[in-house]
Amino acid sequence: MTARSAAVADVVLAEVDAGLDEARERLFNLLRIPSISTDPAYKTDVQRAAEWLHRQLADLGFDVVVKPTAGHPVVLGHHPGPGGSKAPNVLFYGHYDVQPPDPLELWTSPPFDPQLVDGPHGKRVVARGAVDDKGQLMMFVEALRAWTQAGGGIPAPVTVLLEGEEEIGSPNLEPFLVANRHSLAADFALISDTGMWNIDTPGITTRLRGMCNFEITVKGPSRDLHSGLYGGSALNPVNTLAHILGDMHDKRGQVSIPGFYDAVREVSSQQQAEWQALGFDETAFLRGVGLSAPSGERGVPPLQRLWARPAADLNGIWGGYIGAGSKTIIPSEASAKVSFRLVPDQDPRAVFEAFQRFVADRLPSGAEVSYQPFGMAPGIEIATNTPWAQAARDALQQEYGRAAVRMGSGGSIPVVDQIKRTLDIDSLLMGFGLDDDQVHSPNEKFEMRCFHRGTRSHALLLGKLAARA
Amino acid sequence: MTARSAAVADVVLAEVDAGLDEARERLFNLLRIPSISTDPAYKTDVQRAAEWLHRQLADLGFDVVVKPTAGHPVVLGHHPGPGGSKAPNVLFYGHYDVQPPDPLELWTSPPFDPQLVDGPHGKRVVARGAVDDKGQLMMFVEALRAWTQAGGGIPAPVTVLLEGEEEIGSPNLEPFLVANRHSLAADFALISDTGMWNIDTPGITTRLRGMCNFEITVKGPSRDLHSGLYGGSALNPVNTLAHILGDMHDKRGQVSIPGFYDAVREVSSQQQAEWQALGFDETAFLRGVGLSAPSGERGVPPLQRLWARPAADLNGIWGGYIGAGSKTIIPSEASAKVSFRLVPDQDPRAVFEAFQRFVADRLPSGAEVSYQPFGMAPGIEIATNTPWAQAARDALQQEYGRAAVRMGSGGSIPVVDQIKRTLDIDSLLMGFGLDDDQVHSPNEKFEMRCFHRGTRSHALLLGKLAARA
Repeated sequence: MTARSAAVADVVLAEVDAGLDEARERLFNLLRIPSISTDPAYKTDVQRAAEWLHRQLADLGFDVVVKPTAGHPVVLGHHPGPGGSKAPNVLFYGHYDVQPPDPLELWTSPPFDPQLVDGPHGKRVVARGAVDDKGQLMMFVEALRAWTQAGGGIPAPVTVLLEGEEEIGSPNLEPFLVANRHSLAADFALISDTGMWNIDTPGITTRLRGMCNFEITVKGPSRDLHSGLYGGSALNPVNTLAHILGDMHDKRGQVSIPGFYDAVREVSSQQQAEWQALGFDETAFLRGVGLSAPSGERGVPPLQRLWARPAADLNGIWGGYIGAGSKTIIPSEASAKVSFRLVPDQDPRAVFEAFQRFVADRLPSGAEVSYQPFGMAPGIEIATNTPWAQAARDALQQEYGRAAVRMGSGGSIPVVDQIKRTLDIDSLLMGFGLDDDQVHSPNEKFEMRCFHRGTRSHALLLGKLAARA
Repeated sequence: MTARSAAVADVVLAEVDAGLDEARERLFNLLRIPSISTDPAYKTDVQRAAEWLHRQLADLGFDVVVKPTAGHPVVLGHHPGPGGSKAPNVLFYGHYDVQPPDPLELWTSPPFDPQLVDGPHGKRVVARGAVDDKGQLMMFVEALRAWTQAGGGIPAPVTVLLEGEEEIGSPNLEPFLVANRHSLAADFALISDTGMWNIDTPGITTRLRGMCNFEITVKGPSRDLHSGLYGGSALNPVNTLAHILGDMHDKRGQVSIPGFYDAVREVSSQQQAEWQALGFDETAFLRGVGLSAPSGERGVPPLQRLWARPAADLNGIWGGYIGAGSKTIIPSEASAKVSFRLVPDQDPRAVFEAFQRFVADRLPSGAEVSYQPFGMAPGIEIATNTPWAQAARDALQQEYGRAAVRMGSGGSIPVVDQIKRTLDIDSLLMGFGLDDDQVHSPNEKFEMRCFHRGTRSHALLLGKLAARA
């Protein structure tokens, strides 16, 4: 970075600092719009949020449209950056829809009436969407604004893609990406929908687990049978399903499906050491949800288990009589919902097929099995040796005075895979949420310290992308 | 049997034959009363059925009362038999309440408007309660009537106990038995609520399986968790419950709980041979309920598995998300309903304790388990070398021209255990139902051939009890 570009960046950061109250007011205005994507009653509110964001981007000189889809619209804007810049083209992705606020009675203030309240880290914003994802996307918008007002203009070509259906599984995003692939061309995608390691330690998420998710049903007798008159002769599908699914883990906590770990790569010793150095307190992590001991693979360090090893969970199970009291039947069928969290290189379809073979090998004669697949997504590992990843690390180092942690996430962010598959663009996941932000829960919050320093980090990232060009 | 008593019996049987149409009309009158014990809307109908039976017994010279209980009343009647008789004192047990008729739309005629229809074995009665237990108890009443009208009077001391709460689990029977134990004193209890081997082959049920029935709940995290963010670290109670319950049977189909079979006696080779000779077609039995292969213990003959070996069935299981589609959570708890069918000498409480140890041995740290017991009843084997059992065999041999099968039942008849425990009286189970009688189902029926020959068998039994005195 040249001395001049560093001086410009300082001016931009000062603008972020000076404009923080106004930025927060703008965020509050967006938070006041109940853009609940899953509930048709809020359809016009979702539209209103899109139009509100359209105005913000138009004010910043973006060429922006609210594009309809089969569901809620996408806000799509382009800014060319400075003429003749060789800075990489940034595709910023965010979503402006939110989860429903239920259960309402657990909120300490109305979910769409944002409040600034005191917390252990200073002021925080309490509202549905405070961090997921309105607060996070507005940090990027505010960084753009600071560059526009104090830095001589947005320093790199930027495309902004704001979705209104993330909380309902993005049913219309992939067709949109395909249909608009030319106007979405970029060097990388910047997504701010993840977290930091802790409030003082920034993070870049470089690993996401994938998913293989389905329902299994085992059928036995054609109707529920009297367990006295048939017990010992008739096949019991609940017994059968429990036996098969209960056999899915061995004594060491490993998944015992043949071939399940074949494609699982070992984590590099460097990465292992980096995670080890974080001193993750799994006991405290689990104590917070009422558990006194860890589960999962024996002998594998906790962050590795959560971020870099696959897991198999039964999300639900049901069959037979489930009312009050006793009904002594042999049920006619039983079902379970199964989800595998997968790591990079594991093929979700191959895992599904291996599971089906595992079941077939154990299915007694007389039983029938069927499946309903829900979702398949591969695990993702994001390269950290790209110029933009380096720029993000530099920005975070400068803002926080310490290196960003290369974090994993045990969950999936499907848009990362969709952007890769449809546009062939890698993502950079730089987010500023905290573990206790109550995402999807009552009293969702976003720390103002995170909002402020996150906006500064985005501003620094834009500057560093431009300086590298 | 003397020539004279045989001649009297012939006259009584002729009276049964001659009075069959009137007997059927009386049964129809009882069947027209919707004495559904579980539904408070039918309370007066239940009372009406009790009073109707009271009149029948009073007409036969019984000293009879309709005794109130905390629920529906008990009809209790005494007849001294002939003065100075040494015939054994008979306690006849039956129940006059019925199951609800739902689903009504599957009935071919109104359930409380009994119809005489043609079937492969001649006429049959179709109505709720046709066989269970109004038809069966009325056979005994009609046998008493034939003796009264043509045999010079009822030939043995008889106590009749007719319950109105059998279909709701007899909640008030045991206190009633205890409170009335002196007026219920008898040499044996005669119960007609079981079946024949087939329409031409009579049966005496000599074995009933017992029950150990409870609900188990495994708790893990204090709330449902995101399976991505916690999978591989947090204990999953559905996985845990499936693992434990799925481990309950070994590869040979045996229950793998330590000590489970310790008290299980081998069936005598004579009994085995007797059952073997029945030529039970398990393939057809299971085909009727849509199953192509038997389950249960390998290498054990089917009737032995159903009648003389214990079984473990999961009657229901539930936990986590069980709605449509996918919700990738680690549920906070999971439950199952478990029933063990037990054989004589297995202690239900010991089985429950062994199961709890089995679970404790497999419970991972962090999980909590709790139980809700439902019911405990021992298996029962009824001695066949008693004078009354011999009298029943003689009666059935005479009526059917072939030996009665010593049958087992995989189910439980709790009153047998209650009468044994509270009154110290053994039961004799002589019933005339068939497997296809649709008990508890729409279009319940009773074959007139069974009703007719069952009435004759009861009349013969009374005569043989008197002749033996």
